[in-house]
Amino acid sequence: MMKRAKRSERVVAIAQQISAQPGRIFTLRELGEAYDCAKSTLSEDVALVRGVLATCGYGRVETISGAAGGVRFYPFRSDAQDWAFVETVCRELSHPDRILPGGFIYNTDVFSRPETTWRMGEIFAKRFHAAAPDVVVTVEAMGVPIALMTARALGKPLVTARRGSHAAEGSRVTINYMSASSKRLQTMSLARRMLQEGQRALIVDDFMKGGGTLSGLMDMMAEFSVTVAGVGVILATAQPEHKSVASYDPLMILDEVDEANRRVSVRPASWL
Amino acid sequence: MMKRAKRSERVVAIAQQISAQPGRIFTLRELGEAYDCAKSTLSEDVALVRGVLATCGYGRVETISGAAGGVRFYPFRSDAQDWAFVETVCRELSHPDRILPGGFIYNTDVFSRPETTWRMGEIFAKRFHAAAPDVVVTVEAMGVPIALMTARALGKPLVTARRGSHAAEGSRVTINYMSASSKRLQTMSLARRMLQEGQRALIVDDFMKGGGTLSGLMDMMAEFSVTVAGVGVILATAQPEHKSVASYDPLMILDEVDEANRRVSVRPASWL
Repeated sequence: MMKRAKRSERVVAIAQQISAQPGRIFTLRELGEAYDCAKSTLSEDVALVRGVLATCGYGRVETISGAAGGVRFYPFRSDAQDWAFVETVCRELSHPDRILPGGFIYNTDVFSRPETTWRMGEIFAKRFHAAAPDVVVTVEAMGVPIALMTARALGKPLVTARRGSHAAEGSRVTINYMSASSKRLQTMSLARRMLQEGQRALIVDDFMKGGGTLSGLMDMMAEFSVTVAGVGVILATAQPEHKSVASYDPLMILDEVDEANRRVSVRPASWL
Repeated sequence: MMKRAKRSERVVAIAQQISAQPGRIFTLRELGEAYDCAKSTLSEDVALVRGVLATCGYGRVETISGAAGGVRFYPFRSDAQDWAFVETVCRELSHPDRILPGGFIYNTDVFSRPETTWRMGEIFAKRFHAAAPDVVVTVEAMGVPIALMTARALGKPLVTARRGSHAAEGSRVTINYMSASSKRLQTMSLARRMLQEGQRALIVDDFMKGGGTLSGLMDMMAEFSVTVAGVGVILATAQPEHKSVASYDPLMILDEVDEANRRVSVRPASWL
């Protein structure tokens, strides 16, 4: 790939390579062969890359020792950076022009913006990484961007349950669930081959009011004998206080939508 | 961000910064202030980064001259790399275990895998970049991963039409369209504020058989007085030959699904 390069060239290439695939372990041997250099040289290169990525706040380069050892990158930024980012998004969402009838706010533009979901995915990855998820699970449709970006940051596959039932998915498990906000019985289905028994799933969605959809996803995981490693939502309403899901981590809380006085209040969740 | 660093450190940081935001112009002044160095030094740094990213096949660093000038990164790889990647995906999809009843193949796992949609998004970005799209448009649900990744690679927003009609989107345009594969009249809606008159839209979706859904998206663009800059689909069936959409670029062609003899044939499109 890049033989006999100067250090300044090699470190650029190494940083790009490992940061393009978060969570993947690159062995020193593999890197040594790619860049045609000795292990000692490579160790110095990796140390330099680790230092720069940490200083600039792009993320963490881990060294794994042992036979299957090597280096691995995760795009985990500092708590201060994460908080500042979420705070900016909260301000954007708190604009009165976003008020919609029925206590909703317009958020589709923000929750489908590549650079925004990218950063949110990094934050969820940092939050749930220690729970060792094997897959990231969501339900179509607007959960897909954030779930995909979370899966990217963890280096894990994305699994999407469909609303209704889809022929192009083969044999599937279908469940009914009660959407608390619409008060209607809904259907979601998930292809059998998307999950294996015993896996750990991180559930991610965009919005949560009563928690009916997320509770449906948790029931679905039980059908597959898959453990729920965590539940992340971008935005949860403060009301109703009692949700169908006991434990979840929202990035932001929607406190109130006061249509009459045109006031919205969105704030970062307290764990941030 | 990183003052008084060595060249080998600075180039790592610059490469990470510009490659994290494809399509964004970073002025030399902005970079000079961030890294506290002279323009001449910075020009040498950028030249080194450009060389490494080109040699390793990560993409292209462009220099834009003039008052609003600077540098900009696009993750466009070589044609050979793109072809080899698509060829690998074709082989994966051509496995007989993927055959589903009714001439379909199971593809959800592949089309929602972060690293796969990432690369496909880069290929679409390279293909349609010259058509100068302002936004990437898709319809829920399985078009979202590829459309999001294409939007990322272009540095443009994602716009997602919803099937049915959604209260949390505010005022919206709703159209009916005929899905050629299901032979049923369907509904899609798009929030008014997602698009502005005169914009150029790149339409991206996962799968195309008759072209009804894509044709519906094109009708939707006409309702918004938005120009269609291009149409990309991951996988199109060879049959029926006549599609509702006259001009489109698929990454792959599904030639046949022979259920009786358990044979599938997926091949890269000829433009690749």
